[in-house]
Amino acid sequence: MPVGNIAPPEIVHAIPGVDIGITAAGVRYKDRDDLVVFSIADQASVACVTTSNQCCAAPVLLVREHLAKLQQQTEKTQTPRYLLINTGNANAATGDVGYQRALQTCEALAEKTGTQAAQVLPFSTGVIGEVINRDAIITGLDACLENLGADNWTAAANAIRTTDTVPKVDSTQINLDDGTAYHVTGISKGAGMIRPNMATMLGFVATDAPIAQPLLQKMLVELTNQSFNRITIDGDTSTNDCCVLIATGEHDEQLIDSEQHPHYQAVFTALQQVFLRLATLIVRDGEGATKFITVKVTGGKTVEDCCDVAYAVAHSPLVKTAFFASDPNWGRIVAAIGYSGAEHLDANLVSVNLDDVAICTRGQLDTSYSEEQGQAVMSRPEITIHIDLGVGEATDTVYTCDLSHEYVSINADYRS
Amino acid sequence: MPVGNIAPPEIVHAIPGVDIGITAAGVRYKDRDDLVVFSIADQASVACVTTSNQCCAAPVLLVREHLAKLQQQTEKTQTPRYLLINTGNANAATGDVGYQRALQTCEALAEKTGTQAAQVLPFSTGVIGEVINRDAIITGLDACLENLGADNWTAAANAIRTTDTVPKVDSTQINLDDGTAYHVTGISKGAGMIRPNMATMLGFVATDAPIAQPLLQKMLVELTNQSFNRITIDGDTSTNDCCVLIATGEHDEQLIDSEQHPHYQAVFTALQQVFLRLATLIVRDGEGATKFITVKVTGGKTVEDCCDVAYAVAHSPLVKTAFFASDPNWGRIVAAIGYSGAEHLDANLVSVNLDDVAICTRGQLDTSYSEEQGQAVMSRPEITIHIDLGVGEATDTVYTCDLSHEYVSINADYRS
Repeated sequence: MPVGNIAPPEIVHAIPGVDIGITAAGVRYKDRDDLVVFSIADQASVACVTTSNQCCAAPVLLVREHLAKLQQQTEKTQTPRYLLINTGNANAATGDVGYQRALQTCEALAEKTGTQAAQVLPFSTGVIGEVINRDAIITGLDACLENLGADNWTAAANAIRTTDTVPKVDSTQINLDDGTAYHVTGISKGAGMIRPNMATMLGFVATDAPIAQPLLQKMLVELTNQSFNRITIDGDTSTNDCCVLIATGEHDEQLIDSEQHPHYQAVFTALQQVFLRLATLIVRDGEGATKFITVKVTGGKTVEDCCDVAYAVAHSPLVKTAFFASDPNWGRIVAAIGYSGAEHLDANLVSVNLDDVAICTRGQLDTSYSEEQGQAVMSRPEITIHIDLGVGEATDTVYTCDLSHEYVSINADYRS
Repeated sequence: MPVGNIAPPEIVHAIPGVDIGITAAGVRYKDRDDLVVFSIADQASVACVTTSNQCCAAPVLLVREHLAKLQQQTEKTQTPRYLLINTGNANAATGDVGYQRALQTCEALAEKTGTQAAQVLPFSTGVIGEVINRDAIITGLDACLENLGADNWTAAANAIRTTDTVPKVDSTQINLDDGTAYHVTGISKGAGMIRPNMATMLGFVATDAPIAQPLLQKMLVELTNQSFNRITIDGDTSTNDCCVLIATGEHDEQLIDSEQHPHYQAVFTALQQVFLRLATLIVRDGEGATKFITVKVTGGKTVEDCCDVAYAVAHSPLVKTAFFASDPNWGRIVAAIGYSGAEHLDANLVSVNLDDVAICTRGQLDTSYSEEQGQAVMSRPEITIHIDLGVGEATDTVYTCDLSHEYVSINADYRS
């Protein structure tokens, strides 16, 4: 059961310039949607970040190659026009066979749509190490192209799930002072093998705001660093992480091409909200999660130190099992802080609060603390671990979940 | 249930110059031995390494301070004379109160034995963040001193357990070519919060070989790096890790004071065996362990790369749950290799064997592999994951266990 509010937004805004088609292609799962095609208007800007995993999947290699190829072309229209996404098979650790098959699916879609293969970006998620069913994908393309529509975001979020128990979607409207309204809609997937690093499991976000591509790419890096790159379920960075941000607005006098543009801040803030929501939805639906945990670190000398401390705590199996048990075993938090590798750390200055309960103050048990208080706060489904390092002004936040029996069951059973 | 052969050796050799006393002091547990005193002959050399955890426990701070103090003293006899070890309470994250209490227990033992407090090295293990019961320890000292004996090694191994299900002891005899016989005996403890870093959970090893202190310290660092520093259960580096190596032989013409000494290699090899056995016993008794896993990495460009890859695989919750389920989900191994951070890595050159079964060869499924083979090897209780990086000659090995429901249960219940 996902933790807390995972309800989709009441209104999922269509993004003019983005159409989505879906089918049950039988890539691996039977009788469920598993193949998604995004069609993107040719004037759109498209930005993308991919996993830092060095054993990355064949489609990730192709995404990078295709984007590099398009960048070398001089005509304005040479942008990605299609995203081709399958679930069930990650097409990772599949060598040249996997690479060729992914390429062939791109070529097939390009041929059907009169585009270049390089204008198709492929994304796969699912089991690693198995050769992908290329023919099922190619056969499914027609059905996807036939039902292309602007209102298929939620259906697409549903189709790209693996062990996700809920589709992950968010959407918002940006109302500018001059009366202009833009929209942001996005979907994500992921529930295990989640510790994105410079990318995300899979995230696809679009806005009808007009944003120049170089700025869009810069924004995407910053957005993922605050959202998908600040979540962890099990510390396992996937081979297939990718996140795409599409801006479909007309490149006219309204074009947002710098951070000084009067519309920039409003658009960026809306994107931040959607990215953070999509990222934290992944944590709320983390495999076996019973608690949603925010690890907020303040008072650090550097952001890097804060990030190291937050991730050490968020990854510790001992901390995570203690939260599963609602046991305020805060010594495990202190131990994780101690081995985090943070450069500027003084054990006697570290304080730890659980929500509003001061538990450890400057290196030792807070004098006001009682086990009853600790127990009470630990039994909440959503808890903030607030760690103050007491040595500076830097801060960072990471989102995670607990480690339960269900996590072991899911990952002992997945595949079979 | 521990995995595989955990039987103690048939003969546990006494080490002349080391006597051990034990009592049930009631530090935290009731009605079980929990306090141990080692008495060390004054001519002995003593070496020690301590945890790299920056939030280390009060006794660890004292061990470092006492050793530093003794080093500044010029008389030959100023070596540690007593080890004072308790289980049940780690005396970590206890601030100045914890520090003072640990110091007072050292002072009490020093007074009773006519030594300096600095000659007492204190070690604690157990729950973090609770103030230690100093009076119970001080009251228990007399009983420990009364039953000091050379044959108490196994009883001591039993007394320092926390969640350990078995006492961990090893012992061997060194037969030198010239007819001299030396002996090595050691104990260790640990089952959770195990990812020692430049130290170990708790390990105490003694030999009656005569070894000069500077060399002994150098040997200890090398020995722990090959043993206690190459194991992981949950990736959590403890606040209390410590390992002590004692050499009690007379400092006469036989004194081993360099690696060129004719006896050095035989003694070092025997110590290596005992250290590795004590370290792997911890993994075999890992919390909830059902499988003993050796992660052997070869073909690396650097040892550091091999170590990074081995630890990434050994820490991955996805790999560990797959082993628990006996599921040859090797893609998870490849994913962990990919995010290990190893500098010199080419996904297309990586090969993975499980024992004798080639599963992934140069980046993709081995053509000879069948799921039946994979299943068969995964169902063994002891498995070697052999990863060949294919880019060099370096190698490293890490020992770990699987992640089971029982791990979650133990760590959700511990404390309460």
